[in-house]
Amino acid sequence: MKIALAQLNYHIGNFKENTKKIISTIEEAAERGADLIVFSELSLGGYPALDFLAFDDFMEEAAHAAREIAGHCQQIACILGLPIWNEHAFGKRLYNAAYFIEEGEIKAIVRKGLLPNYDVFDEYRYFEPAREFQCVPFKGRKIALTICEDLWNVAEERLYAVSPMDRLIEEQPDLMINIAASPFHYCHAEDRLEVLRTNAQKYRLPLFYVNQVGAQTELVFDGGSMVFDKEGHLRGSLSYFEEDMQLFELEDILLPREAGSQPLAVEEDIAQIHDALVLGIRDYFVKSGFTKAVLGLSGGIDSAVVCALAAEALGSENVVAVLMPSQFSSDHSVKDALDLVEAIGCRHETIPIHAASAAFEDILAPVFQGLPFNLTEENIQARSRGVILMALSNKFGYVLLNTSNKSECAVGYGTLYGDMCGALSVIGDVYKTQVFSLARYINRERTIIPEHTLTKAPSAELRPDQKDSDSLPPYDVLDAILFQHIEKEKGFDAIAQQGWDPTLVQRILKMVNGAEFKRYQTAPILRVSPKAFGMGRRMPLVGKAISF
Amino acid sequence: MKIALAQLNYHIGNFKENTKKIISTIEEAAERGADLIVFSELSLGGYPALDFLAFDDFMEEAAHAAREIAGHCQQIACILGLPIWNEHAFGKRLYNAAYFIEEGEIKAIVRKGLLPNYDVFDEYRYFEPAREFQCVPFKGRKIALTICEDLWNVAEERLYAVSPMDRLIEEQPDLMINIAASPFHYCHAEDRLEVLRTNAQKYRLPLFYVNQVGAQTELVFDGGSMVFDKEGHLRGSLSYFEEDMQLFELEDILLPREAGSQPLAVEEDIAQIHDALVLGIRDYFVKSGFTKAVLGLSGGIDSAVVCALAAEALGSENVVAVLMPSQFSSDHSVKDALDLVEAIGCRHETIPIHAASAAFEDILAPVFQGLPFNLTEENIQARSRGVILMALSNKFGYVLLNTSNKSECAVGYGTLYGDMCGALSVIGDVYKTQVFSLARYINRERTIIPEHTLTKAPSAELRPDQKDSDSLPPYDVLDAILFQHIEKEKGFDAIAQQGWDPTLVQRILKMVNGAEFKRYQTAPILRVSPKAFGMGRRMPLVGKAISF
Repeated sequence: MKIALAQLNYHIGNFKENTKKIISTIEEAAERGADLIVFSELSLGGYPALDFLAFDDFMEEAAHAAREIAGHCQQIACILGLPIWNEHAFGKRLYNAAYFIEEGEIKAIVRKGLLPNYDVFDEYRYFEPAREFQCVPFKGRKIALTICEDLWNVAEERLYAVSPMDRLIEEQPDLMINIAASPFHYCHAEDRLEVLRTNAQKYRLPLFYVNQVGAQTELVFDGGSMVFDKEGHLRGSLSYFEEDMQLFELEDILLPREAGSQPLAVEEDIAQIHDALVLGIRDYFVKSGFTKAVLGLSGGIDSAVVCALAAEALGSENVVAVLMPSQFSSDHSVKDALDLVEAIGCRHETIPIHAASAAFEDILAPVFQGLPFNLTEENIQARSRGVILMALSNKFGYVLLNTSNKSECAVGYGTLYGDMCGALSVIGDVYKTQVFSLARYINRERTIIPEHTLTKAPSAELRPDQKDSDSLPPYDVLDAILFQHIEKEKGFDAIAQQGWDPTLVQRILKMVNGAEFKRYQTAPILRVSPKAFGMGRRMPLVGKAISF
Repeated sequence: MKIALAQLNYHIGNFKENTKKIISTIEEAAERGADLIVFSELSLGGYPALDFLAFDDFMEEAAHAAREIAGHCQQIACILGLPIWNEHAFGKRLYNAAYFIEEGEIKAIVRKGLLPNYDVFDEYRYFEPAREFQCVPFKGRKIALTICEDLWNVAEERLYAVSPMDRLIEEQPDLMINIAASPFHYCHAEDRLEVLRTNAQKYRLPLFYVNQVGAQTELVFDGGSMVFDKEGHLRGSLSYFEEDMQLFELEDILLPREAGSQPLAVEEDIAQIHDALVLGIRDYFVKSGFTKAVLGLSGGIDSAVVCALAAEALGSENVVAVLMPSQFSSDHSVKDALDLVEAIGCRHETIPIHAASAAFEDILAPVFQGLPFNLTEENIQARSRGVILMALSNKFGYVLLNTSNKSECAVGYGTLYGDMCGALSVIGDVYKTQVFSLARYINRERTIIPEHTLTKAPSAELRPDQKDSDSLPPYDVLDAILFQHIEKEKGFDAIAQQGWDPTLVQRILKMVNGAEFKRYQTAPILRVSPKAFGMGRRMPLVGKAISF
């Protein structure tokens, strides 16, 4: 039995395009001799469709598209993920389900039992969990078909009372298939490999795993579909960060592995982050119908990295870099920015902001009455740049990319409606120390980001001789403490007990909490870490955080 | 047996202040002779504490505060809502629970069984649902104690497979107590009354219901705690929109109602909305430690209403209105704004924006190269105003109130980083047609909002002779269609079938979908409707909405 794993990139709610893509992939797999083709979780409408799922017409389109697809499954069977109605007398309106289609008909329906509802996941918002589980018979074999989280009730955590595979195994299936929509973060590829391997070994069954690929606003799905044999050996894998389809002969996977076959090469973290960000930018543009990006280029490392990533994602001809020097900009800033522009080969504009910020200072003078220059005037500069970038965006239809990093975003070291402007935050989930690694990775073959940008002391250049280190601790310290608080969800006591200076920890946690109101209005942030700002971290705005 | 219902306003995460308030209320109730005092759901840490619940120190503080409170319950028993650890081998970390405290000790623990996970609620994110339910014995009576949603598994919807009261009734309890954190929207008071009444009648038991009061950023909790007898007659009620405590003699409630006793007066919608917004503004400031508000005053109805509400919430001496006329502002705009300022008695500043917007146009001229005036230049004006307001906010520590209404917010008729700036959106959940009603309600005793502001045609005044009606349908039509799409979650077909012009419906739905990216970055919006923008409505940014 030949099984095709189809790892595709879907556009949420675009049933027409998704259906066309699914049908052509079915036809290709059939031509190549597959008996069964497997698509990822909720592939029909895309994942996450969020509150599109609350609309009846979304559900009607899904049902309609599924019937159309079924019509193309005469020579080949198909597993298709889609939302379906809950027809019971109680519970949520929908199930997260899969159709098993054979000879043009829906022969079986499998419903997801374990619904993730943490971090960026909200599946209980939409779906009723299945309480019954049954294998699917196909060509004399029994398939234990599960949906993503159904295989993730892992020992340490045990989030759920039931374990669908524990039920399914009672029917003595011949293989497991798991369809997923499992978004990337830089620890996830290894976790996933381990969880899948453990399942294969535990149930002594081969496991075919299909993941979605492509970015859906903040979430980047990395693909990386896999096949394991019953010993837990990896027997095949699909690409990361791009569409892929591969056929596997079940009989081969049922045989023991030959010595020396395929180990998995998980890329190093920084390469994964790089690839995820490039895909994240590209899909944001492709799926929203835009082609050109604009961004402010300061000569610093953050905007340099975003510019390089954007050029890679969109083509350098589609990136417009805007230099907006002020009286506080150093000469080297402009030079560093121009060196970058030249290395990338993108268009640039130079628009000095002084006339605008001076105009604001003039018209505010009667109200400010000689009060000294402070953060207000720094913010006016940042906001003047925001107005200029948005004017270019409005006039020419460019999409503004935000260039703030996660460290600044965490402590509120950024101006709301100023440098926090943008339709998409590219590196808002990348700590400053990681931004340096990313820059070095971008420079791995040739110097794109100027050496001086990499070596000079970070500065916002909003007042004379300003340095980030004037108001922030060194980034390696800051990032280490932020990681404990944000990724590890540790509070003051727990972090201080690790040996960090308690005064510093308190100061940093206070800054993080005090910046909640800014982050509420931040652009969507491409998620690459296990805990990104945005939907995955929901803090009270008006609340008193513990310990300070 | 005397039961005290304590309807208090909590500050999320502020265990010190919440505990102090709870203890002093316990002491007051004990002095007044209460046998039992009942606090609302999750009162200890405040509701919703969101991801504060992920931090161990939050849980430790809660446990510590509960022990301290228990020490004050020697003469009086107490029902206290709080999060507790899940000590089972599986499931989410926490339960949403209540302690029954008697003689200084925790005598019983009740856990919530039905966890709302829709609209603004995410309880499955944090809590494991209880599967077992037991009555609490107290002074020879049995109390069926439930937590909020536990009583809401109502017939039409039946969201849940189990119904905790159906289990508890088997123990033949003598009374029901329900503790809640049920946020306001303008249909909710009547729904809630009906659900509670139905429960009392169904189980033939008196019902004591305690709700939280006070605003928590977007969510406004309206209080309105109630007591029903077993016939479903309302026998007592606490204030709406303010703290209250009242004592009820259980024996009285167990007796049949005397003729003519207490009917419930639910205020008309617009009065409720008014009260909710005033409380929402006030609590945002009080709980975040600010006193002064700033807002842009255009002479139009939206900013006039927000200014009047802010003055009511904070005192007119704490409101600074900023007039920012441009060359496109009509004379009457300035006059209308000044009339309002005078009626309210607040401070104002007049800061013409022309110099700033002209400076931007000048410095952009080389790039724009003679392209005609369009939306870009309109946005520059709106953003120049945003920069000015934020400068005042930064310089003087004012909180900027946003003045956009729900109709504009829905169709994207507003400038991101311009008139969409603000820390809190006051009327972002109030349709334009409702804003007019609200203005008339504000004027119910004397003219605060000038007559001319109420009667002139709405205009953004960003180009000569602009009117909202140039680009939008009349507001009564727009709002009716928006209501179907947003509150009723109806798609194109369903709305068009109601008889609306299909072309218009399509155009409006397209605008709503196209403005998703703007709303993603909007300030938190005080919620007064059954479906507000924000946490209660989560749409894909990069997706294709159905039907267009």
